[in-house]
Amino acid sequence: MSDASPAIPDQPLRTLRLKRGEDRRIAAGHPWVFSNEVADTTPLKAFAPGERAQIESHRGQFLGYAYVNPHALICARILSRSAARPVDESLIEQRLRTALTLRERLYREPYYRLVFGESDGLPGLVLDRYADVIVGQIATAGMEALRETVEQAVRALLSPAVLYWKNDSAARQLEQLPLTACAAFGEAPAELGVHEAGLQFTAPLAQGQKTGWFYDQCANRARLARYLWPGARVLDVCSYVGAWAVTALRAGAASACCIDSSETALDYARRNAQANALSVETLRADAFEALKSLQEQGRRFDVVVLDPPAFIKRKKDIPRGQAAYRKLNQLALSLIEGEGLLVSCSCSYHLSPEAHTEIIQAAARHSGRGVQILESGGQSPDHPVHPAVPETRYLKAFFCRVTSELG
Amino acid sequence: MSDASPAIPDQPLRTLRLKRGEDRRIAAGHPWVFSNEVADTTPLKAFAPGERAQIESHRGQFLGYAYVNPHALICARILSRSAARPVDESLIEQRLRTALTLRERLYREPYYRLVFGESDGLPGLVLDRYADVIVGQIATAGMEALRETVEQAVRALLSPAVLYWKNDSAARQLEQLPLTACAAFGEAPAELGVHEAGLQFTAPLAQGQKTGWFYDQCANRARLARYLWPGARVLDVCSYVGAWAVTALRAGAASACCIDSSETALDYARRNAQANALSVETLRADAFEALKSLQEQGRRFDVVVLDPPAFIKRKKDIPRGQAAYRKLNQLALSLIEGEGLLVSCSCSYHLSPEAHTEIIQAAARHSGRGVQILESGGQSPDHPVHPAVPETRYLKAFFCRVTSELG
Repeated sequence: MSDASPAIPDQPLRTLRLKRGEDRRIAAGHPWVFSNEVADTTPLKAFAPGERAQIESHRGQFLGYAYVNPHALICARILSRSAARPVDESLIEQRLRTALTLRERLYREPYYRLVFGESDGLPGLVLDRYADVIVGQIATAGMEALRETVEQAVRALLSPAVLYWKNDSAARQLEQLPLTACAAFGEAPAELGVHEAGLQFTAPLAQGQKTGWFYDQCANRARLARYLWPGARVLDVCSYVGAWAVTALRAGAASACCIDSSETALDYARRNAQANALSVETLRADAFEALKSLQEQGRRFDVVVLDPPAFIKRKKDIPRGQAAYRKLNQLALSLIEGEGLLVSCSCSYHLSPEAHTEIIQAAARHSGRGVQILESGGQSPDHPVHPAVPETRYLKAFFCRVTSELG
Repeated sequence: MSDASPAIPDQPLRTLRLKRGEDRRIAAGHPWVFSNEVADTTPLKAFAPGERAQIESHRGQFLGYAYVNPHALICARILSRSAARPVDESLIEQRLRTALTLRERLYREPYYRLVFGESDGLPGLVLDRYADVIVGQIATAGMEALRETVEQAVRALLSPAVLYWKNDSAARQLEQLPLTACAAFGEAPAELGVHEAGLQFTAPLAQGQKTGWFYDQCANRARLARYLWPGARVLDVCSYVGAWAVTALRAGAASACCIDSSETALDYARRNAQANALSVETLRADAFEALKSLQEQGRRFDVVVLDPPAFIKRKKDIPRGQAAYRKLNQLALSLIEGEGLLVSCSCSYHLSPEAHTEIIQAAARHSGRGVQILESGGQSPDHPVHPAVPETRYLKAFFCRVTSELG
């Protein structure tokens, strides 16, 4: 850091004190403070959005350095638990380096999620790497206040050509942050190139979903090859740019059909198949409508991959969301005849693995089919789970053998 | 079937009726009836151990064909839910064939669990395949009554050289079955040969644990290679015959040390390393004592694999068992310095994935270390999970990155 641009001003930190007993979850390792846990003696409204502070128990015991947002339900997130390690440039850089070390060990090519928020000790920050293009997302006012520090650390560590902030996630509204998208440095490309498992993909950036590519499913797509058989007819539901379909074709599927509601996504799916000397059928439609219509047409598949967007974004969506997952799984099973494979995914944190399993079972019974779960995949290892933070584990991918007899 | 040896006599089936409301779990797909769920109108004591019956709701609705044991807490297990499909030779053979189809699709060589009880529609039966040697376990009186039928079906389907019943599991006592071990046909070998992931192993049969080999961990051992790094020093705790250690060495580990309380197991571990042109260090000791002693000696490792026997066999063992898992994980972390990998397994059904995760977190905080869960593995796909039967999902293997900083 040059003295001329101190991204983190050297100001004395104020203290945020918790109510009695509210330190327990935090002492156990969870980094979040909820607004109803703050003691009256240190009122939240005295803090500016994104201000850094130290967190103390009601008895004045140091718990960690955090950033605060008085407007958010999660009003503070801890960045450091060591009193000797305040939040400064070197902390951010070290966290990034620790994150990079893991990915460089696990991945042969530089295509991965480089930073996964809380799990990498950088709450509110996501960075995805596409070789020398970095696409980031900032979800909190506290991380927004650290943005320049992050940019400098990324530059120092990786010298990428581009760092692009795709800060258009609705989650930012919970922190009263504006939705924007722009390059911090370099020129934003229209498209992103991805290498995955020996395949070449292209995905849209500005027009794409999230940060462009679903790296979280990379490990599950790799699992598919084991369960697929040569000649299988594959249906990829909510296909986005066709990563599952192309992976299946490369693994020996005879055909793959992509269903998505976005023509842009399907354009990319066709291109991605072609780029790997393969070809996919595409069907632009609502997933539920498309499955019903395929069923009525008598179309049948050996393998159906369900990778829908999150149907349960908040707790109150649970009943409706579970009904939607159940319906989707039932429709999928109705398209498989005899022996088949259902890959049933959910990225809703609020759908527990147990509830998802029950949905699969209910769908199987409704369809008079037997189901055996052969493997339950989670997120790829570039989305590590923080063992103290259940919210960091959200993705489920159940690889299910379907048989004709009721199990 | 020749008429001369009808393994299943053609007797009229009696009915076991459930109390009001007790059909719900069963109608949802779970195959077990508990003794307190049976209506007074069809008293359990009227049934012989192992007798087959049809199960009805309190309103007389057919639920399935089951076998009964009036002496067991799980007093009946359903084998068929189709009124047109009673329990006969052809049902057993079809179940076996369906089980075999899956394994033949997933495995290149004939080394796998061929039948995994409830998950394969054959409650109370386990069959492991070692090429032309089949080792089986029968856990219930009802399956014991079907033993000859199973033997004939195995012979018809696979014509193996040997079918050996290793019926010495303590679980049989719950069904008032004797503990025995003998060949149904063929000559029982002293040892079993296993091919796994290009490696050759030998394990003892009569003197070995369970059915000889832990096929359930095969997929997790395969996962290890991704997370290991060349030159790693590996500690294999509760190593049995060294499968983790040998797998790690083949994947590039510089050294591997096996800890087990059985000298026989460690003899095999050394032999298994040699058979693959590798070598392991062995330490015969109680796992807890050994880890403490290694810690005191200043020995350090990069990778520790904890694959202990089930510390929680029954619900009432939960508090003591959880304390034991926590202690073991703490001891393991104390042997890892700087960056490392902890593979933390549990085969206790009564330790939920969430509770196991909390134990890892508690151990990490106690040791002042950071932990990121990179992957959560379950059982290999030859131990499929029945989505209606939570009890069929028991194995957890957490691949954890350990860092020096508190997470």
